[in-house]
Amino acid sequence: MEVGIAVAKVRKYATSNSGDTVEVVERPNGGLSVVMADGQSSGRGAKWISTLVVRKVIALLAEGVRDGAAARAASDSLYTEKGGKVSATLNILSVDKQTNTLVITRNNPAPMLLAVNENIQVLDTPSQAVGLYRDTRPLISEIPLQPGLCAVIFTDGLVHAGERYGQNMDIVTCLEVLLDDEDPTPETIAGHLLEHALKLDQDRPADDISIAVLRVTSHPGDLIRRMAIRLPLES
Amino acid sequence: MEVGIAVAKVRKYATSNSGDTVEVVERPNGGLSVVMADGQSSGRGAKWISTLVVRKVIALLAEGVRDGAAARAASDSLYTEKGGKVSATLNILSVDKQTNTLVITRNNPAPMLLAVNENIQVLDTPSQAVGLYRDTRPLISEIPLQPGLCAVIFTDGLVHAGERYGQNMDIVTCLEVLLDDEDPTPETIAGHLLEHALKLDQDRPADDISIAVLRVTSHPGDLIRRMAIRLPLES
Repeated sequence: MEVGIAVAKVRKYATSNSGDTVEVVERPNGGLSVVMADGQSSGRGAKWISTLVVRKVIALLAEGVRDGAAARAASDSLYTEKGGKVSATLNILSVDKQTNTLVITRNNPAPMLLAVNENIQVLDTPSQAVGLYRDTRPLISEIPLQPGLCAVIFTDGLVHAGERYGQNMDIVTCLEVLLDDEDPTPETIAGHLLEHALKLDQDRPADDISIAVLRVTSHPGDLIRRMAIRLPLES
Repeated sequence: MEVGIAVAKVRKYATSNSGDTVEVVERPNGGLSVVMADGQSSGRGAKWISTLVVRKVIALLAEGVRDGAAARAASDSLYTEKGGKVSATLNILSVDKQTNTLVITRNNPAPMLLAVNENIQVLDTPSQAVGLYRDTRPLISEIPLQPGLCAVIFTDGLVHAGERYGQNMDIVTCLEVLLDDEDPTPETIAGHLLEHALKLDQDRPADDISIAVLRVTSHPGDLIRRMAIRLPLES
């Protein structure tokens, strides 16, 4: 089996900083975690908040702390720092090689999608952002790693894309169409979802948008780990 | 302009853990850093060491500490923890958006390559691994970000590939050939270097091998940040 992860990220039109932060970290007992946070409001302040939350989570995950405990710690930490006045959404996708499971952690009113082959499930049980209250707990799901598994997490910029123009982003239908193709890569899925959102927003995103897609395939793999990154630079 | 980064990584044959660690982290004032460490010996112990070093560096970089200071701190930290008995090599490649430069930090006896278009320079000024002495300093180079810039860092598994079979890995010639192609992606460069090393090692790498390639192109870019990861899973 092979796990593929893709992240695509764009910032709100005419801002210089995205308020979203996405980082990937190795787990000490094998596997990887993708950590995504969206800080309240936008620009530099929001970036500071999302960075604080993601840093806290990845520092703890790197020490072997479990995902749920890391999310609770990040919430308490932001609550303490800002007196409960500032929130951030938090999603974690972890490939845990010890348990051979995908561990999904969600502190986000926005839903996320989980598919096994073409069977798409919307995880939308009410869930709270971190930082506003003491003792905010994440929703945790744990699913055996298996070929055909696909998880899609995103910040609310994707959910609300096009609203300003009376348009509606139907993420489930988009994913259905993409999964109908034979063996789509996570890059294809993340890229198409983002492009569709940008089209609805007429190429001027009304909010920061971040998407992460994790997909398990039966590809034999070759023992090589690979990572590729593209960073646009204004010149 | 656009910056592309690719990492390719394989572990020593018949070990369950790579002793190398490579992580990418966002810089708080814009840009990214790639941090690569190779812990002394191999397996779990080496992994613990390289993780310690990389964690220390990325935690400091994320707080806005400069690369050289972060490398010195990681060295002192490992020296204090292990009483100067254990070493690790350390390389950092940073895209610094504040200064519009590529900042190269090297604490590694192994050389690294820096090219502008087809002009390849070997950076091989003697340099010490971190952790063995008090006050070990890194070598730092800073180059303006410009299209055609390409930096290649690697752990010594790449340098010594094939030695067991009387073969010799000529990294400079490999890179020359790759850069002769029109606009090779960093993935192509990292992938080909690793494949060539694996061939020389007869597909049983004698040591952990990690390669990171950073390339600046004049591609206009589209304001979307992208990341893709492939993680093989033994099933």
